[in-house]
Amino acid sequence: MDILLSTSVWDPKEWIEGLDISDQVGEIHAWPTDKDLSNVEALFVWKPLAEGVVKRLPKLKWISSLGAGVDHLVTDPQIPKNIPITRIVDPNLTADMANYVMMGVIMYQRRFLELQENQQKKHWERLAYKKLKVGVMGLGVLGGHLAKQLYSAGFEVAGYSRTQKQIEGVTCYDENHLNAFLSELDVLVNLLPITPKTVGMLNYDLLRKTPKGCYLINVARGNHLVDNDLLKLLDENHLSGALLDVFHQEPLPREHPFWTHEKVMVTPHVASVTSPESALNLLKENLQRLIDGKELLHQVDKEIGY
Amino acid sequence: MDILLSTSVWDPKEWIEGLDISDQVGEIHAWPTDKDLSNVEALFVWKPLAEGVVKRLPKLKWISSLGAGVDHLVTDPQIPKNIPITRIVDPNLTADMANYVMMGVIMYQRRFLELQENQQKKHWERLAYKKLKVGVMGLGVLGGHLAKQLYSAGFEVAGYSRTQKQIEGVTCYDENHLNAFLSELDVLVNLLPITPKTVGMLNYDLLRKTPKGCYLINVARGNHLVDNDLLKLLDENHLSGALLDVFHQEPLPREHPFWTHEKVMVTPHVASVTSPESALNLLKENLQRLIDGKELLHQVDKEIGY
Repeated sequence: MDILLSTSVWDPKEWIEGLDISDQVGEIHAWPTDKDLSNVEALFVWKPLAEGVVKRLPKLKWISSLGAGVDHLVTDPQIPKNIPITRIVDPNLTADMANYVMMGVIMYQRRFLELQENQQKKHWERLAYKKLKVGVMGLGVLGGHLAKQLYSAGFEVAGYSRTQKQIEGVTCYDENHLNAFLSELDVLVNLLPITPKTVGMLNYDLLRKTPKGCYLINVARGNHLVDNDLLKLLDENHLSGALLDVFHQEPLPREHPFWTHEKVMVTPHVASVTSPESALNLLKENLQRLIDGKELLHQVDKEIGY
Repeated sequence: MDILLSTSVWDPKEWIEGLDISDQVGEIHAWPTDKDLSNVEALFVWKPLAEGVVKRLPKLKWISSLGAGVDHLVTDPQIPKNIPITRIVDPNLTADMANYVMMGVIMYQRRFLELQENQQKKHWERLAYKKLKVGVMGLGVLGGHLAKQLYSAGFEVAGYSRTQKQIEGVTCYDENHLNAFLSELDVLVNLLPITPKTVGMLNYDLLRKTPKGCYLINVARGNHLVDNDLLKLLDENHLSGALLDVFHQEPLPREHPFWTHEKVMVTPHVASVTSPESALNLLKENLQRLIDGKELLHQVDKEIGY
């Protein structure tokens, strides 16, 4: 069996070496290529999947995302329904995401930007801070881990997910109790999966249900958020600020108002970045399972989209 | 019995209400006062203890710091050797300290200042980051908690303390193995107690033993650090930067070079701030113990100084 890598971000070399795990692995191709791909059974993608790739793979048996996100695959019409799609679940990725959000929450709590301005003015002022209630939307692998870490760091934590979850120390709400979840938050963190139901979910109506002064952290996907609704709520002083790591279009276009808004912190999709090293472990495990005819780990449910 | 509060920082009112716990508590005084203090048995101080207070307290039985630090008391010659000194051990204080350091470590790891500059330039660049090894000097209540939190957040963690400690996931070194502790760190965090042995301990020789590029976080006491030695090591590019929350003189004098050094982040002693609310719980517990003739909690060992 051959393997095909299709990535616009990574250097394929790092991956190719690591994937040569067995006699049964033949050639490992990198897209674009003119070579014969008729023996490719596994396709690894990050992202998006280039047009016309799949029709050159008559023996395709498995597609894996090279990151935690699979939205670029589940919505792609060129992928036949019967081909399983898997994602990367990586302890480093999970820890990195939680740490990035922790940084954002603590910087907001301790009023880091004001402290930084005060240093520039040589102004010594012990700014007060209070215990915060942080709400995490999306309680999957990433959100669930974050919620636990926030709780063990002493924050009050609420969690929202489509179906009811139970996490020690975290007050959990399901989709019928979204308003109650939002009503008492100091910080709202978005870690929802992206599905047709969650696109544009962070809109004016939803964000307006948080208490005045609430702070938004979006680390999931840019198209969860209606950008103009956020700008409106910031300018109305309903939301106090936002830390945004993901955007509708990436790189964020230079003319986008987020870059220069004084209440918006922009980071370039770095909350958690898959390292080839750790993702490879999972890909190798699944590759062996494909060879052995076993069930693949971390398959996506295409109906619900994650 | 009466109580005396001597604090230059807090509004005594917040404390006085909370301490009126029993028929046996008489008047609660705030220093300075001309009233008769001869019935004062408990003295609560933050800080320093004003000159001449103790000699007006003939029935004094107990002194408590209103914070975690007790260096302002153990070295004060006006306090008789037989009077027990206690400190505040407060779960909020411990969590706040760990969170502040976590913020500093993650900001350093993710190159937050560069990301901030890039935003100003509308420059999208996914800066790489790596897993860090963080060393915590001082493994008492604060340092021990921090070390555990860093470990559970996925960092590699080393710990240093005078006597050998054992903490799950943390490589611990005692005072005979300081060089080994220092030799592999990406970040050095100081949470040592201040004692005659640790004053000036963060000097050129010690800091020079860290690998080139190491980052320093000092959240313990300003006089652990030899300021000019730090400046020298920053200018020699041995240390890559420092986050400093504590200083020899506070407020940090306007002419001090730390304020404007491009590699130094100055915060005004806010890593953890005792809240009257949570400290009061412990003071009340100890007050009841004093009334009942029981042993006081969190007594300081005056010989070793913490």
